[in-house]
Amino acid sequence: MAAPKTNLPVDSARIADVIDGLARLTEPGRPYTRRAFTALFPAGRDFLLDKFQAAGLETRIDAAGNLTARRPGKKPGLGTIMLGSHSDTVPDGGRYDGIAGVAVALEVARALADQGIELDHDLEVVDFLAEEVSIFGVSCIGSRGMAGVLPEDWLTRQSGGLTLEQGIRDAGGDPARIQAEARRDIAAFLELHIEQGPVLETEKRDIGVVTAIAGITRIEIIVEGRADHAGTTPMGSRADALAAAARLVTGIEALAKSLSDGPSHFTATVGEFSIEPNAANVVPSRARLLIDARAEDRTAMDLFAGSVDLLVEQLARETGTAIEAPRRISDNMPTPGDPLLLDVLDAACETVGASHRRMASGAGHDTAWMARVTRSAMIFVPCLGGRSHAPEEFAETDDIALGAAVLLNAVIQLDEKLQKVIQEDV
Amino acid sequence: MAAPKTNLPVDSARIADVIDGLARLTEPGRPYTRRAFTALFPAGRDFLLDKFQAAGLETRIDAAGNLTARRPGKKPGLGTIMLGSHSDTVPDGGRYDGIAGVAVALEVARALADQGIELDHDLEVVDFLAEEVSIFGVSCIGSRGMAGVLPEDWLTRQSGGLTLEQGIRDAGGDPARIQAEARRDIAAFLELHIEQGPVLETEKRDIGVVTAIAGITRIEIIVEGRADHAGTTPMGSRADALAAAARLVTGIEALAKSLSDGPSHFTATVGEFSIEPNAANVVPSRARLLIDARAEDRTAMDLFAGSVDLLVEQLARETGTAIEAPRRISDNMPTPGDPLLLDVLDAACETVGASHRRMASGAGHDTAWMARVTRSAMIFVPCLGGRSHAPEEFAETDDIALGAAVLLNAVIQLDEKLQKVIQEDV
Repeated sequence: MAAPKTNLPVDSARIADVIDGLARLTEPGRPYTRRAFTALFPAGRDFLLDKFQAAGLETRIDAAGNLTARRPGKKPGLGTIMLGSHSDTVPDGGRYDGIAGVAVALEVARALADQGIELDHDLEVVDFLAEEVSIFGVSCIGSRGMAGVLPEDWLTRQSGGLTLEQGIRDAGGDPARIQAEARRDIAAFLELHIEQGPVLETEKRDIGVVTAIAGITRIEIIVEGRADHAGTTPMGSRADALAAAARLVTGIEALAKSLSDGPSHFTATVGEFSIEPNAANVVPSRARLLIDARAEDRTAMDLFAGSVDLLVEQLARETGTAIEAPRRISDNMPTPGDPLLLDVLDAACETVGASHRRMASGAGHDTAWMARVTRSAMIFVPCLGGRSHAPEEFAETDDIALGAAVLLNAVIQLDEKLQKVIQEDV
Repeated sequence: MAAPKTNLPVDSARIADVIDGLARLTEPGRPYTRRAFTALFPAGRDFLLDKFQAAGLETRIDAAGNLTARRPGKKPGLGTIMLGSHSDTVPDGGRYDGIAGVAVALEVARALADQGIELDHDLEVVDFLAEEVSIFGVSCIGSRGMAGVLPEDWLTRQSGGLTLEQGIRDAGGDPARIQAEARRDIAAFLELHIEQGPVLETEKRDIGVVTAIAGITRIEIIVEGRADHAGTTPMGSRADALAAAARLVTGIEALAKSLSDGPSHFTATVGEFSIEPNAANVVPSRARLLIDARAEDRTAMDLFAGSVDLLVEQLARETGTAIEAPRRISDNMPTPGDPLLLDVLDAACETVGASHRRMASGAGHDTAWMARVTRSAMIFVPCLGGRSHAPEEFAETDDIALGAAVLLNAVIQLDEKLQKVIQEDV
């Protein structure tokens, strides 16, 4: 992280004020928890509403329950440049994940006002509803809704007697109008987020310009062995599901390491792993493992999944267990950042004096859904030790402010460049 | 298994009657469950009491809650030849584990009576209390008690508001007198049990003469890694507790296979295995595994445990995780069968015409505790597919009856041989 920049065209104290104000709105004794659809979430929304209105922005809750705040431009027909992220947290989550992006979006609007800059485009600040995996078991509800791709059957999902439909309504949305209100007027979307990984901190860089949001593929593997008495069954007469699954885990890690040595981001993690009957004196009869694989490049994912299939066949033969073909229980494509936006963000970093690198996002973000309807890109700012989704999550205000300055510069560039591109496109 | 022997000096129908009668006393809808200290256990005891008394035996509940049935000998001063096993089951357990041994012990007493044979020694049939891991989390309560080695602090163990002390009292025992009544008058103890493994069935042998009950050592290993975001943490920056633990499992299996190639029985099983936080998108921070290792030969166990220690040190270095020194949470020595009894049992097999082999027991048995106070040994009879502790557990009545004939012959031999040995010992 660079030494604090003085003379930044943004006000780091105002950014910190938003972040700290939201941090105070946490479930007591459980910092920092403010989940969507829980009693505390509207308090955060009210806090943001006050801040947005104090900044002179026109606020609104859209059909999908997103809080938006508009600063009208001089040529409304050009569409909207949108900035934002989300204010909801995971349980025991952090103060910066999403929140930094909302605070910075607001700061860009205020800095424009302070400097008397009127854009041609409308500028819109957004706090998306429920980016994190919510009480309904699904994520990115607001951004999916804004993009018109929220699965309709999700609305009937229930949690503690509440449906998602009612949850969106309680947040001020109008579920019946989500499809009709899907936004087609957005000219560009930008999001700032903490990295949630160690790369920027390790390399002492200020900004990550996000080349792509990795596609996430979840693969479930079930190994069926045979429950035998651990004392009386000779080692050579067993079909030990754990022994086979352990070799799978090792093989999966080796595959992932090999693919991660390539030019593009790749990770694979066995995050869920369990055995049955899980009794001291019984040879394990069954093991279940869930792979979370993330690739910036779809080719790498296909190569990985194919290699896992081969590994499974080989291990089933060698261990005497039965392993069904691995099952993809979810499979999302990578979302590349818009090339024009990436160039603009690089240039903005140079102008502001921020050291920067291009990098992929291993985590999912609202940006991936906004990319369905508009040019979209993200920047990362460093966070301490790469920690996130934990109370210890931390990012320096100066680093976040530098990111805000980059976004401000990018918005000013885009206000002009987007008009040229549209002309060229035509 | 041999073709049914006709003209056996035992009655296989009476053996089947006891086994089937107890099988009917199961928790409804959950065959075959009759755990010690549960409501159904006394029903099994009452059934046995009737059978024992109908056979003209003198029944008694001892201080540790064991049901014993005596057939007095002509020379009471010689002490008792005891036969037996246990009638309690595991949850969803089988019809033969323990029960076959009790039924056969009774049949030996009845066969002696039928044939008008009066022994010099007293003969005693025993149904030990709670051989299986009971609701109090411990096993072999009755045989430990009879041997005077039941840990006194176990009496305060609780389960659902019941103490073990009260449980023994409810079974008719007198916990305060367990130590005082520890048996020192037993001249020999023999137990028949189903093998609970596949060796006899595979080799088509009738009887296993058990050279030793394996020592059981349980080793717990905790791997501490670091919880990181599965998508954002590069493969090279992780301390993945599961990846390290998986390599441990593979290494433990390889060590066990190598040791099991030796001349004596050895197994090692990772039966319990769990990870934290066990979430799809988080690199596992912690793994716990529990090894169940069983060795007929203590040297093999020491070699195994030492090799596991080295493996753990190596893997901690290579994986960047922290692994505490493996902890032996229990550690029992092997119990060799009494050499005189083993010779007598071999000879009995020959006389009866049963094919036989010597083999170790990988499972624990009451015999291991009786060996603390008297000459002890066991025989195994085959069971289907080596299955045990499951409703499918099955042994042929003819195979069990052949085992009864072996025990009957061994008892008759011992009635004479034990007197000679005592003279020689003096």
